[in-house]
Amino acid sequence: MQDCIIIGSGPAGISAALTLWANGKSFMLFGRADLSDKITKAELIRNYPGLSLVTGQAFCEALQAQLSEAKIAVTEEKVLGVYALNGKFGVSTKEGGYYESKTVILALGVETVKTIEGETEFLGRGVSYCATCDGFLYKGKTIAVLCTNKRYEHEVAYLADLAETVYLIPTYKGVELARENIKILRKMPVKIEGDQRVETLVFSAPPAEGAEARLKIDGVFALRESVSPAVLLSGLETENGHVRVTRDMQTNIKGCFSAGDCTGRPYQYAKAVGEGNIAAHAVTAFLRDGDQE
Amino acid sequence: MQDCIIIGSGPAGISAALTLWANGKSFMLFGRADLSDKITKAELIRNYPGLSLVTGQAFCEALQAQLSEAKIAVTEEKVLGVYALNGKFGVSTKEGGYYESKTVILALGVETVKTIEGETEFLGRGVSYCATCDGFLYKGKTIAVLCTNKRYEHEVAYLADLAETVYLIPTYKGVELARENIKILRKMPVKIEGDQRVETLVFSAPPAEGAEARLKIDGVFALRESVSPAVLLSGLETENGHVRVTRDMQTNIKGCFSAGDCTGRPYQYAKAVGEGNIAAHAVTAFLRDGDQE
Repeated sequence: MQDCIIIGSGPAGISAALTLWANGKSFMLFGRADLSDKITKAELIRNYPGLSLVTGQAFCEALQAQLSEAKIAVTEEKVLGVYALNGKFGVSTKEGGYYESKTVILALGVETVKTIEGETEFLGRGVSYCATCDGFLYKGKTIAVLCTNKRYEHEVAYLADLAETVYLIPTYKGVELARENIKILRKMPVKIEGDQRVETLVFSAPPAEGAEARLKIDGVFALRESVSPAVLLSGLETENGHVRVTRDMQTNIKGCFSAGDCTGRPYQYAKAVGEGNIAAHAVTAFLRDGDQE
Repeated sequence: MQDCIIIGSGPAGISAALTLWANGKSFMLFGRADLSDKITKAELIRNYPGLSLVTGQAFCEALQAQLSEAKIAVTEEKVLGVYALNGKFGVSTKEGGYYESKTVILALGVETVKTIEGETEFLGRGVSYCATCDGFLYKGKTIAVLCTNKRYEHEVAYLADLAETVYLIPTYKGVELARENIKILRKMPVKIEGDQRVETLVFSAPPAEGAEARLKIDGVFALRESVSPAVLLSGLETENGHVRVTRDMQTNIKGCFSAGDCTGRPYQYAKAVGEGNIAAHAVTAFLRDGDQE
């Protein structure tokens, strides 16, 4: 069992990883080898102490080199669920992995896309975050897919092979998928409705010419960079969509810490690395005090 | 009047300065051209994201270069007092300067030397932090000087020119002062006592062979890197010697923010730059909301 599992490979997650490494703790860092879209896409960072007027790409390369020097690997699996078990945590991934740790640090970043009303309520009852996990349930059915990045188009294609009709709702430009059974809608729904399961996707106005403002569907897939914190870890307290933390980055769940954009503004690299550092020290103290009990 | 005065040129103060600069705010940064002893003396920094295994000296040079590129000057005056006036702040320095600002950020670092019991109580009644300001009051008298750095020995010499007897209590090795009227004690006092003014310096045991554990003195000078936060700004709430702050680095005094080691552990560069960043954003928001009133 790991001392800690860090979820997120942005500046907060990396800062936490470097500090746990310096403190000699065992941990896994879940994220992407290219670390973070939000870093690499930053044009110029003007106020990060120690690196003058650095581009996002250069900052990202510096972080990658630093991880590599410290022999810290990024586990490239997408975390779908975190479970607070009896004094430990379980982490499950889309790739089918399951890992355990004494503590977790949620460094999830922030989604610019908000969750839809009803999404959390119907999770597991028609709402899914994982095409390859749940796609087979929708063979021959009608589904909607909220997709935030071209990177997930292969998952949309996978779903289109199974479902009869796919309403694809992308939040990016330049969709490259063209299939007869994929209908692209350029409007975000406002609500998911249903009785026991998802039945209707509600829009504030018809999402396309000739379409209804209320679409009958059997399921909704939300393919996003990250899962919202409260969905990822049941019982986690949030406030205006941000994880609620104390000054030492503790969440309301014992052994669970959080850092970076997901804890609130300012959405800044310096703030994120600071919080990642604090969280790693808090984890170290938590592990030490746990041993003394 | 400045938008902000930042006190302290360690990582927290510099991070705050870079962010205020990026936000287009006017400010002064008080500190030292060589920034911070604690940085330059750091052997190797292992966990600062973006700079791999950097020495303190190299980190310091990177920060200096960055300040220089942004044309941010360090005002090399020692701040002795901060005054919360009506909706603004006044800052006075040992060099006789007086400056005003709408907000302040205290990025004072932490003193490894604690204040002595009675020190705050007798400040201005026998306790002083400034040899050149108050030395003349002790002409022909007996004083004790607590000195934390060789850098202040010229102030001790200045005092020795005036006072009859100087008990010098250094916290560093290799004192270079040798005068007949300077007696070096290698023990820290535990208490300052007196009625209206300072009368006695109390030690837990005789501080030197043949000396008394209770020394009769007329005054005490404490020559330190920084003044303790609560002494610097009257009414500032502290907790175990650390400035009490909220998650967005506000102190209990409106318009006064704090960042870095002085707000508490962990004493880490990443934590300090993160807090400096947050404080600068909080100042920016405070200035904006003030304008709207």
